Amino acid sequence: MQLALTQAREAADSGEVPIGAVIVRDGKVIATGRNGPRERHDPTSHAEIEAIRAAARILGNERLEGCELWVTLEPCAMCAGAISHARIARLYYAAPDPKGGAVEHGARVFEHDQCLHRPEVYSGMGEAEAAEMLRAFFRDRR
Amino acid sequence: MQLALTQAREAADSGEVPIGAVIVRDGKVIATGRNGPRERHDPTSHAEIEAIRAAARILGNERLEGCELWVTLEPCAMCAGAISHARIARLYYAAPDPKGGAVEHGARVFEHDQCLHRPEVYSGMGEAEAAEMLRAFFRDRR
Repeated sequence: MQLALTQAREAADSGEVPIGAVIVRDGKVIATGRNGPRERHDPTSHAEIEAIRAAARILGNERLEGCELWVTLEPCAMCAGAISHARIARLYYAAPDPKGGAVEHGARVFEHDQCLHRPEVYSGMGEAEAAEMLRAFFRDRR
Repeated sequence: MQLALTQAREAADSGEVPIGAVIVRDGKVIATGRNGPRERHDPTSHAEIEAIRAAARILGNERLEGCELWVTLEPCAMCAGAISHARIARLYYAAPDPKGGAVEHGARVFEHDQCLHRPEVYSGMGEAEAAEMLRAFFRDRR
């Protein structure tokens, strides 16, 4: 999660909402991603999507079986859907996101029959640091 | 919708599930996309995502305000989330998807408070042709 938090910090340094993600398999980092929709002119450029696309490209396979995704914030509906399509085995997220999350809030993407693959979900590790980084980012922009 | 169906046919010709999408603004086609996760080694490579990413790149803006998205199948949770993030004004889809859809089925992404932008949604135009293309594709692969 520390590596995901480092990615989040890099997003903030670029003026993007600080969210970072890392994909790990067998204890090895496969890919990282950070939030960057503005600079990349890409509304799908969330940390999770960037990490998933990079890992799939590196592994030459659109299915990331056996992979873990570590991310600093609860995934939104788009990212939860991508996590399911990518067959991510385990999802670890730091802070819950009552305003935009779709795992334990809102659309609860993994809880419907239409979701064909559900990862194991764990949360809370690194929560204080991830949440404080987001609070500081929005405070500074006000 | 005919152009979206043409994109879907091209996906089928490449061995991918036949789904196509088109983004239109002020009556002009901005971008097209077709489903292609296998050949592109990218689990996020759905028709809608491809079209949205292409349009945002072309317009140099991650927000596709005033744009319409035409797609041959009801969007999944990932694509519905992307449609919301992209600020698509109007969504037109041909066939409903009870097994994987997240607009009128399952996660119903646009119906939660966590969804910060909801497009107007229309469906049914081109439904028979879109559904038959999908049925034929899966029949041929059995």
